[in-house]
Amino acid sequence: VEDVSTTTLHPDRLLPADPATRSIARELYAGIATLPLVAVHGHVDSAVLFEDRPFGDPAELLVTSDHYVQRVLHSVGAPLERLHGDKNRDPRDAWREFCGHWDAFRASATRLWLEHELTELFGVELPLTAETADASYDAIATCLARDDFRPRALFGRFDLELLSTTDSPGSTYEAHAGLQAAGLRVVPTLRPDTLTDATRADWVSSLAGLGITSYSQLLDRLAQERQRSAEHGAVATDHGHATPHTEDLSDVEASALFDRITKGQAGPGDTERLAATLLTHMAVMALDDGLVMQLHTGVLRDHDRAATASYGSDIGGDFPVPVTFTVPLRPLLERCGNEAAFRLVVFTVDETVYSRELAPMASYYPALHLGAPWWFLDAPDAMARHFVATVESAGYAKLSGFVDDTRAYCSIPARHDVARRSISAHLARYVAEHRLSLDDATAVAADYAYHQPRAVYSI
Amino acid sequence: VEDVSTTTLHPDRLLPADPATRSIARELYAGIATLPLVAVHGHVDSAVLFEDRPFGDPAELLVTSDHYVQRVLHSVGAPLERLHGDKNRDPRDAWREFCGHWDAFRASATRLWLEHELTELFGVELPLTAETADASYDAIATCLARDDFRPRALFGRFDLELLSTTDSPGSTYEAHAGLQAAGLRVVPTLRPDTLTDATRADWVSSLAGLGITSYSQLLDRLAQERQRSAEHGAVATDHGHATPHTEDLSDVEASALFDRITKGQAGPGDTERLAATLLTHMAVMALDDGLVMQLHTGVLRDHDRAATASYGSDIGGDFPVPVTFTVPLRPLLERCGNEAAFRLVVFTVDETVYSRELAPMASYYPALHLGAPWWFLDAPDAMARHFVATVESAGYAKLSGFVDDTRAYCSIPARHDVARRSISAHLARYVAEHRLSLDDATAVAADYAYHQPRAVYSI
Amino acid sequence: VEDVSTTTLHPDRLLPADPATRSIARELYAGIATLPLVAVHGHVDSAVLFEDRPFGDPAELLVTSDHYVQRVLHSVGAPLERLHGDKNRDPRDAWREFCGHWDAFRASATRLWLEHELTELFGVELPLTAETADASYDAIATCLARDDFRPRALFGRFDLELLSTTDSPGSTYEAHAGLQAAGLRVVPTLRPDTLTDATRADWVSSLAGLGITSYSQLLDRLAQERQRSAEHGAVATDHGHATPHTEDLSDVEASALFDRITKGQAGPGDTERLAATLLTHMAVMALDDGLVMQLHTGVLRDHDRAATASYGSDIGGDFPVPVTFTVPLRPLLERCGNEAAFRLVVFTVDETVYSRELAPMASYYPALHLGAPWWFLDAPDAMARHFVATVESAGYAKLSGFVDDTRAYCSIPARHDVARRSISAHLARYVAEHRLSLDDATAVAADYAYHQPRAVYSI
Repeated sequence: VEDVSTTTLHPDRLLPADPATRSIARELYAGIATLPLVAVHGHVDSAVLFEDRPFGDPAELLVTSDHYVQRVLHSVGAPLERLHGDKNRDPRDAWREFCGHWDAFRASATRLWLEHELTELFGVELPLTAETADASYDAIATCLARDDFRPRALFGRFDLELLSTTDSPGSTYEAHAGLQAAGLRVVPTLRPDTLTDATRADWVSSLAGLGITSYSQLLDRLAQERQRSAEHGAVATDHGHATPHTEDLSDVEASALFDRITKGQAGPGDTERLAATLLTHMAVMALDDGLVMQLHTGVLRDHDRAATASYGSDIGGDFPVPVTFTVPLRPLLERCGNEAAFRLVVFTVDETVYSRELAPMASYYPALHLGAPWWFLDAPDAMARHFVATVESAGYAKLSGFVDDTRAYCSIPARHDVARRSISAHLARYVAEHRLSLDDATAVAADYAYHQPRAVYSI
Repeated sequence: VEDVSTTTLHPDRLLPADPATRSIARELYAGIATLPLVAVHGHVDSAVLFEDRPFGDPAELLVTSDHYVQRVLHSVGAPLERLHGDKNRDPRDAWREFCGHWDAFRASATRLWLEHELTELFGVELPLTAETADASYDAIATCLARDDFRPRALFGRFDLELLSTTDSPGSTYEAHAGLQAAGLRVVPTLRPDTLTDATRADWVSSLAGLGITSYSQLLDRLAQERQRSAEHGAVATDHGHATPHTEDLSDVEASALFDRITKGQAGPGDTERLAATLLTHMAVMALDDGLVMQLHTGVLRDHDRAATASYGSDIGGDFPVPVTFTVPLRPLLERCGNEAAFRLVVFTVDETVYSRELAPMASYYPALHLGAPWWFLDAPDAMARHFVATVESAGYAKLSGFVDDTRAYCSIPARHDVARRSISAHLARYVAEHRLSLDDATAVAADYAYHQPRAVYSI
Repeated sequence: VEDVSTTTLHPDRLLPADPATRSIARELYAGIATLPLVAVHGHVDSAVLFEDRPFGDPAELLVTSDHYVQRVLHSVGAPLERLHGDKNRDPRDAWREFCGHWDAFRASATRLWLEHELTELFGVELPLTAETADASYDAIATCLARDDFRPRALFGRFDLELLSTTDSPGSTYEAHAGLQAAGLRVVPTLRPDTLTDATRADWVSSLAGLGITSYSQLLDRLAQERQRSAEHGAVATDHGHATPHTEDLSDVEASALFDRITKGQAGPGDTERLAATLLTHMAVMALDDGLVMQLHTGVLRDHDRAATASYGSDIGGDFPVPVTFTVPLRPLLERCGNEAAFRLVVFTVDETVYSRELAPMASYYPALHLGAPWWFLDAPDAMARHFVATVESAGYAKLSGFVDDTRAYCSIPARHDVARRSISAHLARYVAEHRLSLDDATAVAADYAYHQPRAVYSI
C-alpha cells in the first residue's frame, strides 16, 4: 500500500502547553496511540462494508452524508439544497461550498476529525480553501478509486477490532453474517425505539407493521429481536428515548396502557408511562441475555420541521434539552441497578448531570456506567470537563471508556485519536499535580482507550 | 491633553501564566488592543452625551449610578441609603464607603474594570483605601472638572466608533440626531418590552398611554417605532422578556388574546402566549427592516421588593433563573431562523445553555448568533467558559463577537480591554496546543474584538 | 508522642504544574498549612469524643462507617453486606475488599483524604493492595491501640479549635458539656428537620413523640431547642430540607396548615408550604438568637429503597437533583436577607446555581453567604470550579470559607489540607495572571482557610 499521507498535523496537538505536563502527556499518549480501535457504538451501514464498493465521491463521503458538517455549513449560510446530496447536482458544488467555509469549523471537533482524515488518510494539504477545492477534491477522488480505500480495506487500515452498527427491529443481519464469515467483526446493535417508545408518532404503525396486537406479543417480539441480534454477535442494545423516564408497572397495568394507546384511547401520560415501563423491561431482559443497555436521551429531534420535510432527519437539526436522571432512572435502577449481570451505559448531551447526578449514581449502583461525552460534547475541552466532573466522585472505573458514535466511517480513527489525546492531557495534569502516579495514569489511559470499553461491553 | 495616568496595571494581566502560551497571547492581544470600540449595546443616556456637561462627582460617576458596585457594597453591609445617591448627602460619604470596601471586589470583574478606569483614565493610585479616600476623590474630581473629561471628549478618547443606547417606545431621538450631526455615531436601540411583554404589570397602562386599543394598532405602532429608530441610525432592537418563550399564533388568535387581556379577562397563560407571539412578530418585522433582534431573558427583576420600592430598580437586585431555549425558541426559529435577512443574537445568564442548547442551535440556524457573556458572566473566567462551551460545536463564526452592556460610560474601554485579553488568552492556549494556527487565531481575535460585531449587526 | 508517619505524599500535590504559578501556590499554602482547624459543620458523634474509647478497628474506622467509601466499593461490585459492618464478620474481610479495590478510588476526593490519613496519621505505605491488606490492617490496628490515637488525643493532634456536631431535637448535650468542661470546644448544631420539614414521612410522628399538638407549641419548642443548643455553645443550626422552597405565611395560615396535616387532611402542597414557612421562621428566630442558618438542599435521600431497608440510610445512596434558589429563597430573603443580625449559609450539590443564582444573590443580600463545595463537590477540581464561578461576581467576601462536612473524624485534617491546597492553587493562578496582588491573595487564603468561617459563624 502506497502511503499518500503528507502529514502536517502537529504530533503534540491537544496536549497541554506546560512543558513538564506535555512531556507526561506525550508519554501517556505514546502508550495508547496505536492500540486497536473498539467501535462499540455507531451508525455505519453494514451493507457498505458487506458490499465493499468504492466510496462515491469526496462530497458524499465527507460532506453530504455527515450532519455535523452539513449543520455548520448551513449555519453560515450554505443552502441545504446544495448540501443534501441531490443526485442531479455536481458533487463538486457541495465540496466547493465546504472548502469555502473551512474557517467556519475553526476550533470545532469536526475540524479536528476532518484534519486528521484529510492529512492522514487522503494526504490533502491544509487548510482547505475555495481556490484549491478542485485540487483537494481530485486528490481524495483519486484515493477513493483505489482498492486500498474500499471499506473493508480501511477496516484493516483503521485497525478496527470491532465495529457495532445500529439496527432496527426486523433486520436480517445478512451483511453482519457475511462480514463475520470474512473475518471482520461487525456486530449489530438492536435499537428498538419504534417498538418501545410509545410516545413516538409512528409507534402504533410500527406495531401494526410487525403484526403486534397485544402487550405480551410486544414483549415476545422484543425478546426475539434481542435474541436474534445476540446470535449475530450483538453486545448491546441502544435506546434513544426522548427522556430517561422509567417506570416499573406490572404487566397487567402495562397491558391496559397498551390497549388504550393502540385503540386511540390514550389518556394524559399514558404513552410516557408505557415507554417508561418498556425501558425497564429492556433492563430486565438484559439480565437474561447479557446485552449491555445503552441509553441516549435528552434530544429534541427534527427541530426545524419544514427542513426535515424537505431534506429528511439527518440534517443536523437535533438539539439537546435539559435532562435529569436521579428521579426518572430510579425505578429501573431499583429493579436492576444492583444486578451483577446487568450493565447500563448512560449518555448525555446535558453536561449539568455529570457531577450532579450521573457520577454520584454511578459511584453507587454497580450496573451503572457513564458513557463517553456524546455528540456535541465529543470534543477535547468537553471531554476535559467530563473527566473532571465525574472522576472526583466516581473514579475512572465507572466510565465506559471511549465510545465513538458516528455514521462517518472515515472519522472513526480521528475520533479515537482525539479521545486518546484528551485522556492523556487530562491524566498528565493529575500526574504533574501529584494526584496520580505515572503508573496509575498509564493504566487508566489504556483502560479508557481500549480495555474499559471491552470490559464494560463484555467483548 | 495632559495625561494624568500613572498606570500601575500589569501589561500582561489576564494572560496565561505558561510562558510560551503567554507569549502567544501577548502577540494576539497586541494585534487587537487598539482597535476602535464598537459598543453596539448599552444603556448610556444619550442626553449625557448630547448635553455634554461635566460628570457630577466621583461617587455619582463610579458608585451610586453603577448597580454592579452598589450591589457588592450592599452585600457586605453598606446601607443602600448611603449608596443610592441621595442628593442631601455628601457624595464623599458614598465614596468613603466604597474605598473602605475595596477588598470586597477582589477578583471580581467590577474590580478589573474599576482598576482600569482609575489608573488609565484618572491616574489614581491603587489600591483604594479608606485612608486615601479623600485623596482619590479629589484626584478624580479634578479630572472631571477638566474639559477633556467631558462626555464627548471621552467619546473620542475611548475611540468609540459607535455607541448604541437603549430607548423606550415614544422616544424622540433628538439627542441622537444632534450627536450624529456633530459627528458622533450614537444610535438608538428600541426596547419595546412595555408594548410586547404582555406579562408585565404595566403592559395595559403602557398601551393606554400610547392610545393603543387593538392588536392591529399595536402591530402598527411597533412597526412605526422600529422604523423611527432605524431612521435615527438604529442597527438593532432589544428584548428583555422574562423567558424566551415564543409562539406563532395567527393574527386572529393574537387579537383575541389582546382583547381578553386589555378587558381584564385574561385566562391562564394568555399574557404569556401574547408576549410569545409578539416576540415572533418582532422577528418577522426584522425581515423587513433589517434590525438585528437581541434577546435578553432569564432574569427575575426586583427580587427585593421593599428595597425596590424605596430605591428603585437599579440597585443590583436582579437575579438569573434557569432558562431553556430549545423548545421555547422553536416557533420563532422555524418561522425566521433560516432567513438570510434576519439575525437573532441571544444572551443568557444561565451558562448551562451554552453547550446544551445555544451552540448546537446556532451551529444550525443561520439567523442565530450567540451573544457575548452577559452581566454576571462578563468576566475573564466566565468568558473562558463561554468560549470552550460553544466553539467546539459552533465554531467562532456564530458568536456575536464582544458586545458590552453597561450604563457605566467610563467602564466601556475597560470592558473591551478585558474581553480582548480574554479572547487572546483563550486563543493562545489553542495555538499552544496546536488546535489553531497562529494565523487563524490572529484572524479570530480581530473578528471577536471588532469585525464580527460589525458584521453581525451590519454596521 | 512517637511519630509513626513515613510520609510518601508529595509536598506539592494539588498545586499547579506551571513552575511560576506553583511557586506562588507554595508560598500561599505555606502561609496557611498549619493554621488551626475550625470544623464548624459535621457529623462526628459527640459521645465518641466524650467517652474517648479507642477506635474499634481499621475497617470500622475507615470503611464500614464511611458512606463515601462504601458507595464506591459497592459501585464496583463489593456486596453491601461485606461493607456494612456486620458484627458477625471478621473486619479484615471488609478491609481486604477495600484494599483490593484501591484502584477504584483513583483521582477521587476520597482517595486524597485516605492517602493523607493513611500516611500522615497511620504511617501506612501506599498504594494499598490486596496482597498487603493484612499488613496495613495490622499497622493501623497497632496505632489505634495506642493512647495517643484515642479521640481526644487526636483532637489535639489535629489542632481542632472547634468541632461542631449535628444534633436532633431533644438532645441533652451532656457529652458537649463534659467535653467543654475538659477544654475541648465541641459544640452542638441543632438540625430540626424532623420538626420543620413537614414533607417528611415521619413528621407527624416526630411531633407526637414530643407531645406537640399545635402550631404555636411547635414554634415554642423550636425556640426552646435553639435556645438550649445555643446555651451549649452552638453557633449555627442546620437544615436539610429537600428543596430550598420558603414561604412567609401568617401564623394563622400556617396554623391552619398544621391542623390539616396533623389531622390527616392535607391537601396538595400543604406539607410543602408549611415546611417552607417553617424555614422562614427559622430565619426569623435567628434574628433573635444569632445562630447562623445553614441550608443543605437538593438531595434525594435513600434512592435505593430495598438497600436502605436492609442496611440503613448511610450507604451512599443519596443523590442530587436539580435545584434553583432565586425564586424559592425569595420570601426568606425578603424577610431577613438585609438584616445585619442574620446569616444564611447555603450549600448546593448542583453546580449550575453557583454563577447563575447563588453568587449573584450573595453579592446583593448581606445575610447570604455561599457555603463551601459540599459532598460530591468537596474535591480539588470541583472547588476550582466553585471559586471561578462565584468570585467574579461575588468576590471572596461572601464565601463562607472552608467548611468540611463529614462523619469520618480522621479525615478532617485531610479535608482541610485539600481545601487549603485548592484555594492556594486557585489564587496562585490569579496572582500569576496579575489579577490579584500577592498581598491580596495571601489575605484571601488565610481568610478562606480560617478567618472567614470564624467571622461568618461568629466564633
